[in-house]
Amino acid sequence: MTMPAFLAVDAGGTSTRAVLVEPDGTCLGYGVAGGGNPISAGPERAASAVVAAVRSAASAARRSPNDVGGGILAMAGSGVHTDTAWVSNALTAAGFVGDIELRSDLLATFFAGTYEPEGYALVAGTGAAGIRVKNGVVDRAADGLGWLLADVGSGFWIGHRVVREAVAALDGRAKPTALTTLLVEALELETESGTDADGRPGVLRLVTDAVYRMRPVELSRFAPLAFRAAGDDAARAILTDAAAALARLFGAVASPDLTGPLVLGGSILAQESVVADAVVTAASASGLVSETRQVPDGVIGAAVLTLRSAGVDVDADVFERIRDSLGRLR
Amino acid sequence: MTMPAFLAVDAGGTSTRAVLVEPDGTCLGYGVAGGGNPISAGPERAASAVVAAVRSAASAARRSPNDVGGGILAMAGSGVHTDTAWVSNALTAAGFVGDIELRSDLLATFFAGTYEPEGYALVAGTGAAGIRVKNGVVDRAADGLGWLLADVGSGFWIGHRVVREAVAALDGRAKPTALTTLLVEALELETESGTDADGRPGVLRLVTDAVYRMRPVELSRFAPLAFRAAGDDAARAILTDAAAALARLFGAVASPDLTGPLVLGGSILAQESVVADAVVTAASASGLVSETRQVPDGVIGAAVLTLRSAGVDVDADVFERIRDSLGRLR
Repeated sequence: MTMPAFLAVDAGGTSTRAVLVEPDGTCLGYGVAGGGNPISAGPERAASAVVAAVRSAASAARRSPNDVGGGILAMAGSGVHTDTAWVSNALTAAGFVGDIELRSDLLATFFAGTYEPEGYALVAGTGAAGIRVKNGVVDRAADGLGWLLADVGSGFWIGHRVVREAVAALDGRAKPTALTTLLVEALELETESGTDADGRPGVLRLVTDAVYRMRPVELSRFAPLAFRAAGDDAARAILTDAAAALARLFGAVASPDLTGPLVLGGSILAQESVVADAVVTAASASGLVSETRQVPDGVIGAAVLTLRSAGVDVDADVFERIRDSLGRLR
Repeated sequence: MTMPAFLAVDAGGTSTRAVLVEPDGTCLGYGVAGGGNPISAGPERAASAVVAAVRSAASAARRSPNDVGGGILAMAGSGVHTDTAWVSNALTAAGFVGDIELRSDLLATFFAGTYEPEGYALVAGTGAAGIRVKNGVVDRAADGLGWLLADVGSGFWIGHRVVREAVAALDGRAKPTALTTLLVEALELETESGTDADGRPGVLRLVTDAVYRMRPVELSRFAPLAFRAAGDDAARAILTDAAAALARLFGAVASPDLTGPLVLGGSILAQESVVADAVVTAASASGLVSETRQVPDGVIGAAVLTLRSAGVDVDADVFERIRDSLGRLR
């Protein structure tokens, strides 16, 4: 009989990652499936995705479901949606026996970059949020309040500004910008659509109709246009403002008596960019950042949280073993 | 037998005004009902409101439906939703016999302030739009593109900024502002709600939940908070930015070879305010504005459009007669 491996799940809005991990940090199997957040995908679809990712991880580890122990599932909204029945019942029905606890996706992002129990994480994907971590738990969070109220500097926020600047130029309320051409191309519209009865370019109506057919958060798909047009005045202003907003977000969670690593996640911050560079520069100037790490997702952090929850002292060795063994699996 | 009087309807999103007018400009009866825009209220409810307003106007004029002639109905979206069946059928069913033509609500706002066939109108209510008028018709329009894409400087735009600034202060991402207290009061929430698990004030969650229960455009109800807190830095910045945006809107429709009156409408511009003052100052600096007028709605303009459509030369005398006689009716 094998010892049950622990389960760690990083359930995101568009994809879900699951890993089986042993107490020494060795990852045995890794699986990926669709969106596993019950708030955005609905509990049934989210549970199916989690089960699919866990099955895939167990299969890769050559473990039957009853040789998989409990663990943690990291997701956005875990502080509000604390009930685990949606996922526990589905895993039990699939033959898995361990208990599942929920954790913050932001905390998983933090621990994807470090094993140290204190520091900061900033995530800017479709949304934007920041946390201060103390004694291994969230001590202070900021933003993550959604597209209508905040998420300042997020993919939605940048994409929304891209669309508004492109439209303002078409409408004669702002000077021409390269973002207009990029947006019209991205929407696969005809540029040459004449002038409408109100004296406006016909393509303005086409853009307007196309955007209003989208759900607001989908405007995040236009964020890359700002990076692509970085030489353009309007695009540069958007990215400068996004970086300033994310620096303010760091300021909202920063505490003068807490120094530690700063972990950056989400499509806007996980890669090298003018925004990430500016945010790192601003945050480092506080003197509170010991080092910065960029991470593609939170699955390593979910594994760290699972081991911590099981009483394992996740030190540098265990952390490196998680990173190395998971790196070989995916 | 009496001569049929002409019909003029100003069908807005929240209320509809109807007036019967004689060729010399004498208004015979006036009626008001609920929202009559088929796009926002749906065609059936909008048609019921229009019929109610027209019936009320006819009754006040002591006219039976078959003594009421045709006329025009001014509404937002008239350039796109050109079909009149929704309202014609309802009026016919109620015994009214004349034909109804649609006109732009912005043009009705313009002619509510002047009989001159050339000039400008800016409207900032829930939305924001501007037009240049030439030969009595819209020569160029700008904005009016809705809350997600533009409507810069509108009631929605101001209310949205109010909420975002109030929330940013609660979230520690911006310095305290008087807007927070005003918003919490307007939402009838408890200020003393302790601190949540993320180290944030509990009232932040209450505000967030309350705002996400609203339709986005409803955020326009918070625009008055910015005017009430005009001494506050954040509130002043919002109003300054709104005025600058509306000045740019004027710039988008201004033509160097067209001088005429500037008519201001909508809740943000129809009254004396720091925003209206700043917009008038900026627009007047162009040298293209002969005079400015603030109008509460477009019903006078609908009457002007009805008479112009019937071939009446609406001069200063006719215009004053419409204003005076309608003023006595309402």
